[in-house]
Amino acid sequence: MKRRIKLLIEYDGKPFSGWQRQSGAGSIQGEIERGLSEVLRHAVTLHGAGRTDAGVHALGMTAHFDTPNPMPAAKLPRALSAILPDAISVVEAEEAAPDFHARRDATLRWYRYQIEVARERRPLGPRSWRIPFELDFEAMREAVSRLEGDHDFSGFRSVKCSAERTQLTMREARLERQGRLFIADFKCPSFLQRQVRLMIGSVVGVGLHRLAMAEFMDILHLKRRRDTVKSAPADGLCLMRIAYSEAEAENLLTEHPPGPSF
Amino acid sequence: MKRRIKLLIEYDGKPFSGWQRQSGAGSIQGEIERGLSEVLRHAVTLHGAGRTDAGVHALGMTAHFDTPNPMPAAKLPRALSAILPDAISVVEAEEAAPDFHARRDATLRWYRYQIEVARERRPLGPRSWRIPFELDFEAMREAVSRLEGDHDFSGFRSVKCSAERTQLTMREARLERQGRLFIADFKCPSFLQRQVRLMIGSVVGVGLHRLAMAEFMDILHLKRRRDTVKSAPADGLCLMRIAYSEAEAENLLTEHPPGPSF
Repeated sequence: MKRRIKLLIEYDGKPFSGWQRQSGAGSIQGEIERGLSEVLRHAVTLHGAGRTDAGVHALGMTAHFDTPNPMPAAKLPRALSAILPDAISVVEAEEAAPDFHARRDATLRWYRYQIEVARERRPLGPRSWRIPFELDFEAMREAVSRLEGDHDFSGFRSVKCSAERTQLTMREARLERQGRLFIADFKCPSFLQRQVRLMIGSVVGVGLHRLAMAEFMDILHLKRRRDTVKSAPADGLCLMRIAYSEAEAENLLTEHPPGPSF
Repeated sequence: MKRRIKLLIEYDGKPFSGWQRQSGAGSIQGEIERGLSEVLRHAVTLHGAGRTDAGVHALGMTAHFDTPNPMPAAKLPRALSAILPDAISVVEAEEAAPDFHARRDATLRWYRYQIEVARERRPLGPRSWRIPFELDFEAMREAVSRLEGDHDFSGFRSVKCSAERTQLTMREARLERQGRLFIADFKCPSFLQRQVRLMIGSVVGVGLHRLAMAEFMDILHLKRRRDTVKSAPADGLCLMRIAYSEAEAENLLTEHPPGPSF
């Protein structure tokens, strides 16, 4: 009998070419498919909730796959840990409804971005975008908060993004400070390609006083990317968690763990 | 005129063969000497406060060297950051007294060891010794606290350790808990080779109920290593900070930052 299994996956994105399986490059999807095929003794296709870019981390990526193998789902994490690279861990595995879909059924996605204000590199510090200049935290917090609500986010997406719907409801956008670490949380049913990194690139522009608040708002209102605004580095970004019901979404919206988280 | 410079160094020990320069292996001392020689345009010999083993981390290693180059010490961190591997950072550099000695003048050394109780690997979690079994925290805390005070620590040193003085005053030994993370702090004027990792190996033996408290105390009192007790993994250990006066030592003794620190 065919069973559908849901996985919760944590990974350090640094050593990989991204989530999506590619020919000739180590992808997270490819590594886990290979591990599952070895454990379950049949070819496995894994469906992730989204495609994180090269270098982006995840504390809570969700994915599903089908198998006729009767092995209890709870045994998968340990079996996989012996096979998977150190930078990938399947933290939980459980039976799902036969029609559960990791991407389509998601009701809310939570991404976190960490920025560190520091003159020198901190090899043991949290993963982050290190900025060796002063940043105007209050201006940045204001810019982030203006991203909350219903907007067309076309000004904050990759030129390669092919999403048809660009009008999204950002249910939460907030920036907090813990010493020299700035932590931005974005919670939205779905995101456009590169959206968080492009938003953060602009927010840091505001923090450096290179971009006026009116110019920042123009990116949103005119739906046009600014050539001078760069995408923030992948290392500061983490997919924190994905909700699959309105109740789970409400839980994510009230969760604000003290950072840094990764 | 010859000047003596004092450095504060942070490193992720994972990619290196340890602090000490060795032929044919990447050492932290060797990398910094190479970087300093390039910046200052003369051969530099660096004297560290101690020799961390392969894989051991440091948030606050101290070292000194001499140079006739008049470059302001404060410019060294940035100049070195362009040359050193990402896993090493010279966080501070300052003029020191001509007779300052990073190793001999140290009055207190602070090491921290992190243990994580977790069934599955956490690629984004703190550096730690992951133990997939239940641990008796109260028994471990009791064992750690018994290491405080004046003791001959011969039972907790590497067979290769050549130190003549094994009688040491452990001014602080404590274990704290933060969720599933156990954090042990040891503060002593000096340490024997492998001492912290051997102490932690035994403390975890107590936590797993594989070693009775009386057997643990025998290691200390009979000054004999137990063959069954292994050295704890390097990845959980970090040299936190070194004091160079009694005032600095007192500061370290009152400092208990919430963990994890690395």
